[in-house]
Amino acid sequence: MTISAESQVQIDNAEVRVTQWRLPRGGATGHHRHEMDYVIVPVIAGEMTIVAPDGSRSKAQLQAGQSYFRKAGVEHDVLNETYIDIVFLEVELKP
Amino acid sequence: MTISAESQVQIDNAEVRVTQWRLPRGGATGHHRHEMDYVIVPVIAGEMTIVAPDGSRSKAQLQAGQSYFRKAGVEHDVLNETYIDIVFLEVELKP
Repeated sequence: MTISAESQVQIDNAEVRVTQWRLPRGGATGHHRHEMDYVIVPVIAGEMTIVAPDGSRSKAQLQAGQSYFRKAGVEHDVLNETYIDIVFLEVELKP
Repeated sequence: MTISAESQVQIDNAEVRVTQWRLPRGGATGHHRHEMDYVIVPVIAGEMTIVAPDGSRSKAQLQAGQSYFRKAGVEHDVLNETYIDIVFLEVELKP
């Protein structure tokens, strides 16, 4: 059984949408495609498991407050295979 | 004596600039004007003292991961009058 991620929109205006995501142990976002360029800001340190569309898996380390940028078009599923919650903000940049 | 804030640019591209700010106890950003709309993402909980251009002071509570949005044109100084560092990301949205 897959546990859903929890999401909470903090800001949504003409320029930007900011969503807080929380993935509990065993949680997954589900496969999705990013329609906008985005910045990720980890809120707590952790490790994400990324599943690419071809099924290949990789790990990504998260450091609290260490942001990164990605272009629209990225497709993946994000899983939490650790024992602590994954919490991050997604800052989507509206065109 | 005023202690300077430390800043570190994490992302700077055509769409966005993300800067991490750290204000130690007694630290201040110095008076500044925001030239771009921006999102603040606190990295750790804390309390900022905001000094407006007219010298009036207010306190703002920061919760880790609780973001907020402001339009360009805001002018202020930001001080740390507490005993713990203030750490936040400033996400500036390029026009």
